Amino acid sequence: MDDGAKEQRDPAWWGRRAWSLLSAVRAQAPLVQCITNLVSMDIAANALLAAGASPAMVHSLREVPEFTPRCDAVYVNVGTLSEDWLPSMCAAASAGRPWVLDPVAAAASGFRMEACLELLALRPAVVRGNASEILALADRSVAAASNFKGADSSHESVDALEAAKALALSSGAVIAVSGAVDFITNGEQVVGASNGVPMMQKITATGCAVTALIAAFVAVEPSDALVGAACALSIFGLAGEIGMESSKGPASLRMHLIDALYCLNEETVTSRVRIALQP
Amino acid sequence: MDDGAKEQRDPAWWGRRAWSLLSAVRAQAPLVQCITNLVSMDIAANALLAAGASPAMVHSLREVPEFTPRCDAVYVNVGTLSEDWLPSMCAAASAGRPWVLDPVAAAASGFRMEACLELLALRPAVVRGNASEILALADRSVAAASNFKGADSSHESVDALEAAKALALSSGAVIAVSGAVDFITNGEQVVGASNGVPMMQKITATGCAVTALIAAFVAVEPSDALVGAACALSIFGLAGEIGMESSKGPASLRMHLIDALYCLNEETVTSRVRIALQP
Amino acid sequence: MDDGAKEQRDPAWWGRRAWSLLSAVRAQAPLVQCITNLVSMDIAANALLAAGASPAMVHSLREVPEFTPRCDAVYVNVGTLSEDWLPSMCAAASAGRPWVLDPVAAAASGFRMEACLELLALRPAVVRGNASEILALADRSVAAASNFKGADSSHESVDALEAAKALALSSGAVIAVSGAVDFITNGEQVVGASNGVPMMQKITATGCAVTALIAAFVAVEPSDALVGAACALSIFGLAGEIGMESSKGPASLRMHLIDALYCLNEETVTSRVRIALQP
Repeated sequence: MDDGAKEQRDPAWWGRRAWSLLSAVRAQAPLVQCITNLVSMDIAANALLAAGASPAMVHSLREVPEFTPRCDAVYVNVGTLSEDWLPSMCAAASAGRPWVLDPVAAAASGFRMEACLELLALRPAVVRGNASEILALADRSVAAASNFKGADSSHESVDALEAAKALALSSGAVIAVSGAVDFITNGEQVVGASNGVPMMQKITATGCAVTALIAAFVAVEPSDALVGAACALSIFGLAGEIGMESSKGPASLRMHLIDALYCLNEETVTSRVRIALQP
Repeated sequence: MDDGAKEQRDPAWWGRRAWSLLSAVRAQAPLVQCITNLVSMDIAANALLAAGASPAMVHSLREVPEFTPRCDAVYVNVGTLSEDWLPSMCAAASAGRPWVLDPVAAAASGFRMEACLELLALRPAVVRGNASEILALADRSVAAASNFKGADSSHESVDALEAAKALALSSGAVIAVSGAVDFITNGEQVVGASNGVPMMQKITATGCAVTALIAAFVAVEPSDALVGAACALSIFGLAGEIGMESSKGPASLRMHLIDALYCLNEETVTSRVRIALQP
Repeated sequence: MDDGAKEQRDPAWWGRRAWSLLSAVRAQAPLVQCITNLVSMDIAANALLAAGASPAMVHSLREVPEFTPRCDAVYVNVGTLSEDWLPSMCAAASAGRPWVLDPVAAAASGFRMEACLELLALRPAVVRGNASEILALADRSVAAASNFKGADSSHESVDALEAAKALALSSGAVIAVSGAVDFITNGEQVVGASNGVPMMQKITATGCAVTALIAAFVAVEPSDALVGAACALSIFGLAGEIGMESSKGPASLRMHLIDALYCLNEETVTSRVRIALQP
């Protein structure tokens, strides 16, 4: 075990890292280009702003070559994929900036799966999806090279863990599987992040918003996407926990979550972030 | 009068039906594909989630042939119509799933009216619009075959009632006319649904959201779109009434309405739904 | 000094004008066509509705020739510009209605800057941007004809004031520069509007929403865009101040701001609007 792994066995280390990364986002206000779905634009932009980042929803192929190189990170989400946006997504992913992929409903169609595989080949720093999405992606992209075979019927993040590890190794990306516990892996290490509340799934595009937040964290810590992704997931989940304390339903949770993300302080983050290196 | 009509004369029957359909949506979580306007995506998706349904905003023609047949219902809304989306709307409407049409501002242009008529010919289960929209549609699609002539200047739902009946008979769709009282008709029966508060009109896309909810109700009760549409309209209006109790303006109403929709229980629904078969 | 300027030196005059214009928007419900970015549609539509206007998000080139002439004003925003929307923007701007331009991130790319210059040549009544956007626009469109040279590095509205005056004179538009103090100029007169709170910048698309509101004010007072723009900016900022009193973060501010805009009354507007003619 190297020193990094030793540190990461200490739960308090993660709280300090999460706070340090959130502080860096607030201080540096990284410019995050988002080519995301039409449903999530509002909540993704507001989550980035609340965390201290600077969102830019720019999707025209006419702008990507000039604009993307000036960004600190890129976020690509295929939720409302169409043929005319895919070239911009690929161009932005190829612009040399760290970037993060959200393969929403990867298995919805052959067109969408092919698009996800094409994007995956452009070496995202992080891919975040739910168990079904990661299983579907791994099934297609890893199957040819290994014995791994995904099981599409299951939806617990733990069930997608082996798929996520295989996908991480074959793609070179950190893979984050959202669920009751979020699992984040580079194919060797596995980290579990346990913050969050179930009602977040009743708000549209919370998954998209947290992937945008991952992009902001990767922007300020490009050399360690595993830690950045885990901390972003935990911070967003923690904001959900705090928001839930004042909420009566999904719409008030959406509001209080964003407010809580904006208001997070050091004591709350270091004491309530729940991330653990898995054995 | 048949037995169904006799039952429907009992106001309490409607409360029980509304609760039964909402419970079915919560239990079955029907997958509702939405090809809707760019303004309404957030509130439509959040209303569907709060009611227990599963929204999918998928609009690419490359995905419709594979994806739509797996859906439980389809929702098409022409609010921000463009030439490139219309073929997807028509393809999704033709995929053999029950579907619902929202002809937003049907008379805004010849292009939009022709698109609405083209969609109407693809046999939606339900068309929901305001009085002006239904009058404009009826004026164009019924005029050739009858003496009916719509009056565009009027905007009370009751004024569009004759137009709605003629449109229902000529199109085969259940027609719902939103207003202070919502009228729902299959051309023979007419049902009035009276829940709701005026301030809902000050929130953008509430009409779009309730049509999405109608699609979810039709998904779990495809054999009786009249009852499904009336119950969805009443449930959404009831959520607005409850939300209004805590609201200071349209933005807080929007939040509390979605929260209330999520929290509705049997007692509230059965005692407060106001639907009546019209004489 | 003419009589108009004399009146405008009285701070109370501005409060009365702001209330009078807001009342006119509420009474006339002007139809405002918005061709705006995908992120801002929800908040722009809800801000217009809360102020009493009637928003119409119509962007298809197939609809503009028929629809735009029926509108009271047009709002064009290039935030998520793409090649397929630009012709509609130009057509709507050329339809003979008073119109307002929001040159979001004008300097993001050559494509976007050229589009902004093309739109600017179509004689908007008002252009509202932040200091960087106005400086970038002025730098490109005024430079050839004068000694003015914009400084892109600065972001205080006061720094963009000379650029704004030059841009107003060269374009014929009223130029509004948002900031801690908003400056509004026709090239000769300069008005400062000081309402608002810093946290509004942490809500996505508040700038877009206030430009939409300017379009509504210009719709009811097309002959004095300088006064309309200043009053709209102040009214929106005042709604933010009132909203801030109940807010814990940017998401609750967003809600309370829209509620406050809806609830504004004469006493509040006349006593709290802070607009001053600059010496």
